[in-house]
Amino acid sequence: MHAITISEPGGPEALVWAEVPDPVPGEGEVLVEVTASAVNRADIMQRQGFYDPPPGASPYPGLECAGRIAALGPGVSGWAVGDEVCALLAGGGYAQKVAVPSGQLLPVPEGVGLKQAAALPEVVCTVWSNVFMVAHLRPGETLLVHGGSSGIGTMAIQLAKAVGAKVAVTAGTKEKLERCAELGADILINYREQDFVAEIKEATGGAGADVILDNMGAKYLDRNVQALAVNGRLAIIGMQGGRKGELNIGTLLAKRAAVSATSLRARPLEEKAAIVAAVREHVWPLVAAGHVRPIVDRELPMSEAPAAHRVVEESGHIGKVLLTTAS
Amino acid sequence: MHAITISEPGGPEALVWAEVPDPVPGEGEVLVEVTASAVNRADIMQRQGFYDPPPGASPYPGLECAGRIAALGPGVSGWAVGDEVCALLAGGGYAQKVAVPSGQLLPVPEGVGLKQAAALPEVVCTVWSNVFMVAHLRPGETLLVHGGSSGIGTMAIQLAKAVGAKVAVTAGTKEKLERCAELGADILINYREQDFVAEIKEATGGAGADVILDNMGAKYLDRNVQALAVNGRLAIIGMQGGRKGELNIGTLLAKRAAVSATSLRARPLEEKAAIVAAVREHVWPLVAAGHVRPIVDRELPMSEAPAAHRVVEESGHIGKVLLTTAS
Repeated sequence: MHAITISEPGGPEALVWAEVPDPVPGEGEVLVEVTASAVNRADIMQRQGFYDPPPGASPYPGLECAGRIAALGPGVSGWAVGDEVCALLAGGGYAQKVAVPSGQLLPVPEGVGLKQAAALPEVVCTVWSNVFMVAHLRPGETLLVHGGSSGIGTMAIQLAKAVGAKVAVTAGTKEKLERCAELGADILINYREQDFVAEIKEATGGAGADVILDNMGAKYLDRNVQALAVNGRLAIIGMQGGRKGELNIGTLLAKRAAVSATSLRARPLEEKAAIVAAVREHVWPLVAAGHVRPIVDRELPMSEAPAAHRVVEESGHIGKVLLTTAS
Repeated sequence: MHAITISEPGGPEALVWAEVPDPVPGEGEVLVEVTASAVNRADIMQRQGFYDPPPGASPYPGLECAGRIAALGPGVSGWAVGDEVCALLAGGGYAQKVAVPSGQLLPVPEGVGLKQAAALPEVVCTVWSNVFMVAHLRPGETLLVHGGSSGIGTMAIQLAKAVGAKVAVTAGTKEKLERCAELGADILINYREQDFVAEIKEATGGAGADVILDNMGAKYLDRNVQALAVNGRLAIIGMQGGRKGELNIGTLLAKRAAVSATSLRARPLEEKAAIVAAVREHVWPLVAAGHVRPIVDRELPMSEAPAAHRVVEESGHIGKVLLTTAS
């Protein structure tokens, strides 16, 4: 088969579409013939040499895919060759075939095309596990999403609205904020022109955000804690603004608030399977009902992964950038 | 009645036993004739002028008491004049009488004397709400308690052991660590001589602590995060080591860990009542069964509150220091 390989870490040109051996599904795994994968920021870090695949994972990038089951490994039940699926991956999505632990498979949801389904697993699992399973966002509460027009952001807006929460977003352009509003965002904050702490306080009668989903890490830590409501929960899923930041414990304690940080990729199989099962139970019905849908910015052939990475690195996209194969 | 008053913030001598008007129980409150109160570090901060009572609270110090119900305010049911009770207070425990919202009352548990019951409300509610309601310590997990011989520490050891957890403690002397061991602590760390991060890792096969109960705040923040296990939870309840500390978000994220901070005093009545109800349901049976008991260092007459504060400020105690009235 062909896959995107990284022989030396570097810029987008380090991604090379090359002939490689087919993967072989192990115990409890299925082989998926990939129709599409999607770009995540973690792929860019992997390309740059800052985020090696966990032990045992495929060396190729790609944390999600959609496609058809081509073969079943030993000990797999509940799935059949030919099934249309999408999947959460520890790597290897940028390829014509990938071996996937069966606990990370999801059926393509009703009403969603096979290619578009590749836009769902990573963002849905990330948002559901952080905003709902860890931070327990409840109906009537306010969620603040940084980077509201990103893949994560567009999914967080839709899921939070679907459960009856109020949603605030930050983004860097008027166009991006307008797209967030179309998806249901109630409070629009241009982080280049406005102070998000002041804006969220004003929009909530001084209360602040009950839950914040943050991809910036250190750079926003102090302001995020300021922006939290009493009993607020800050869920950090990225460190685009650095790893070490000053935490004002006095403010956190006065608010009885909490800060959590997670990632999906390094989790043990059983934790990933539990998240995927929760997504199938709670989110797939919302997708089938049309309340939540994949937001796709554009599709590029997988061999043009370098161009796709450039789009994401320049933040020129809204939603997800797909990489498609010929299959 | 008499109460300990603070006319000017200052040292222990600022605490003056003086004649003051009797409190009047309002809607939903009872009047308790106080048999004993107990010293908390928050009382010392209040005496020093750093921790004002929340709006509506008694101006006198004292966050817990035990005694007999002397009168019922309007709208109270389930309690009667003469009932022996202990109570969580927003203030006013250092007095002969105190008005208490009925949701913060607990019966004196079976097998515990009336005076000794004054050692329970604040530590039991703090430990239960943080270690169990927020951090969800589970049987088989490891709890690290800083200040294991304090009032909070001695209660945390007993409660964690009672639910089947493993307990590590830090303390500053051999004698204090021995008392922790008598209460059931499994891992003893002398913080003056040992590095608690290295010790907890070694004692858990490299895993770290699943839950940490911390009273130091900024000073221990980075080391606490280092000491956490994967999926670990750091619960901060004090800032004896400062308010602002550096948080390594990268470490937190790699561990999928969380940091929370709470205090009891400023919570709304309904949250306090929910904690008190959970304590009555889950902890009182453990006390009645003899698995958990109040640890009292010494008793002093309430008029000698200055001496009691000196003991706690010098950390010369193990467990709680009680203040008793003549009643």
